Amino acid sequence: MKVVVVVGGVGGARFLLGVKKFLGLPPEGEPDSPGAHEVTAIVNTADDIWLHGLRICPDLDSCMYTLGGGSDTERGWGRTGESWTVKQELAAYGADPEWFGLGDKDIATHLVRTRMMRAGYELSDITAALSDRWKPGVRLLPMTDDRVETHVVIDEPGTGERKAVHFQEWWVRYRAEPRAQSIVPVGADESTPAPGVVEAITDADIVLLAPSNPVVSVGTVLAVPGVRTALRKTEAPVVGVSPIIGGKPVRGMADACLAAIGLPTTAEAVGRHYGSRACSENGVLDGWLVATGDTADVPGVAVRAVPLLMSDVDATAAMVRAAVDLGGVDFG
Amino acid sequence: MKVVVVVGGVGGARFLLGVKKFLGLPPEGEPDSPGAHEVTAIVNTADDIWLHGLRICPDLDSCMYTLGGGSDTERGWGRTGESWTVKQELAAYGADPEWFGLGDKDIATHLVRTRMMRAGYELSDITAALSDRWKPGVRLLPMTDDRVETHVVIDEPGTGERKAVHFQEWWVRYRAEPRAQSIVPVGADESTPAPGVVEAITDADIVLLAPSNPVVSVGTVLAVPGVRTALRKTEAPVVGVSPIIGGKPVRGMADACLAAIGLPTTAEAVGRHYGSRACSENGVLDGWLVATGDTADVPGVAVRAVPLLMSDVDATAAMVRAAVDLGGVDFG
Repeated sequence: MKVVVVVGGVGGARFLLGVKKFLGLPPEGEPDSPGAHEVTAIVNTADDIWLHGLRICPDLDSCMYTLGGGSDTERGWGRTGESWTVKQELAAYGADPEWFGLGDKDIATHLVRTRMMRAGYELSDITAALSDRWKPGVRLLPMTDDRVETHVVIDEPGTGERKAVHFQEWWVRYRAEPRAQSIVPVGADESTPAPGVVEAITDADIVLLAPSNPVVSVGTVLAVPGVRTALRKTEAPVVGVSPIIGGKPVRGMADACLAAIGLPTTAEAVGRHYGSRACSENGVLDGWLVATGDTADVPGVAVRAVPLLMSDVDATAAMVRAAVDLGGVDFG
Repeated sequence: MKVVVVVGGVGGARFLLGVKKFLGLPPEGEPDSPGAHEVTAIVNTADDIWLHGLRICPDLDSCMYTLGGGSDTERGWGRTGESWTVKQELAAYGADPEWFGLGDKDIATHLVRTRMMRAGYELSDITAALSDRWKPGVRLLPMTDDRVETHVVIDEPGTGERKAVHFQEWWVRYRAEPRAQSIVPVGADESTPAPGVVEAITDADIVLLAPSNPVVSVGTVLAVPGVRTALRKTEAPVVGVSPIIGGKPVRGMADACLAAIGLPTTAEAVGRHYGSRACSENGVLDGWLVATGDTADVPGVAVRAVPLLMSDVDATAAMVRAAVDLGGVDFG
């Protein structure tokens, strides 16, 4: 069976662990076993950023490190046993910005990636090359090989000046505190899906939208022209998992992003935002999984409530099973 | 007084410590005191290399770290308290080459430099910017802002294939073991001296050639068109210090380089190779300082023998004093 999952970073990576567990694939860090099931993750790249001359792809790396058994699960991002020598030295040079935590181990990934980019390789090729080491057991596809970067319009703390900053600056430097006046995936309009993205959706047996940020993760993947159309056309059912539980984002600051696009922080609002394939002009959902205790009325979409906390891989696998069931797919 | 010193890397850096000591300038790592004396180092850049997408300038960095009090004097190169996390990670990706030791602290320097290069700054500007942190107390000028790289023609170990490799590959990877058929500073012909180089030589009260490698360090500086002419024209005396003592290089593998250009490893041969300003067509020397026990007959050049081992900064300062005396300059 072929499973396609649209994901962001840390939450998406954790969800993918559940997908692998549900399918009986080897856990993180263990070698692939070529089996009956194939998982393709379509990963948000609009968080990507150039820092210190290096191309950083936080969501791709979160997926790669997590699925490869190399992520720091306590800190929640980056590599296990990470050190910060380069960062300290960059600070000693006064090299801006200092607010983004580039670890030493992580930097090696960015060096390899940046060198390959400079040599003319596409991000999708580079991701495949990096995955040779990590063996994530999931095909990781960037949503696009083109440069797309989410920018956020804010009133700058201190100066009050209205300006557009990179999503990472808003998220990491300012902790999403200045209100987002608008959120724009710069470059998305002119981007095209990376090789394999549309094909994976078309050939899928089921497509899942991970409980990642609906605006700056899943939302930007949907903003790549061609992706939404492929989701609407595929014969596979498309089932989303709500990132909102009891009116709050499970992790991260999705509420601040939803507010920026004029939506309340509820499972129903996010479900309606994704919309129904059957009943709305641009909708992508057949099913919408919400947390026990939440309700959602999304016309044309089958809604079910189950426990949604990804507290461990078994709980996550149970969520995946519920999503697959809701999609009406039988994995035997 | 204005002192100009032509230098390579580690040995040149050590010689510069002696120059500062002789002039009564503050030792390494202590703040500059604007004083009566000005030292300009013209630094070889033909060892420079692109590795992992980073521009590495070993000689400039050796000078900067050493004079700034940040070099590992026991290992003889690189930073104190260095760590190797990035290198290990690059190896885990199978990223070539693995034979060059890029430390974590060192990498921060290369990141800052490379980012500035990509932004269009010249190496001389970048070196000045990096020196803002290190405060070497000496103006470090790259010999040129242009790309010049020493290549060495060898029969490759294993395959026996004749090929040109970067100097660093011959020196670091192969420990200069395969015989150098020829040594070529690629790009030197079309290079121009970095801003300030010719002016510094012209305005100098004395010019010293450090006991650095006469082929791949001092030799490549002399290969930049305009430098040799400036040395021949300046009113300042030009005094060289022999890197060969008792028929052996003090450090490094200068003998292998001298053999490649058909010269014996003697103080006399190197002195004659540099030549006399007065008596030979392209010569640059007025004085040639050799080690006690060595002799050298270099027509038109004043030769003196003194102890030449840079065993500590006082011994090095005594060498500098002898060179200055030989040049007939009175520093009061």
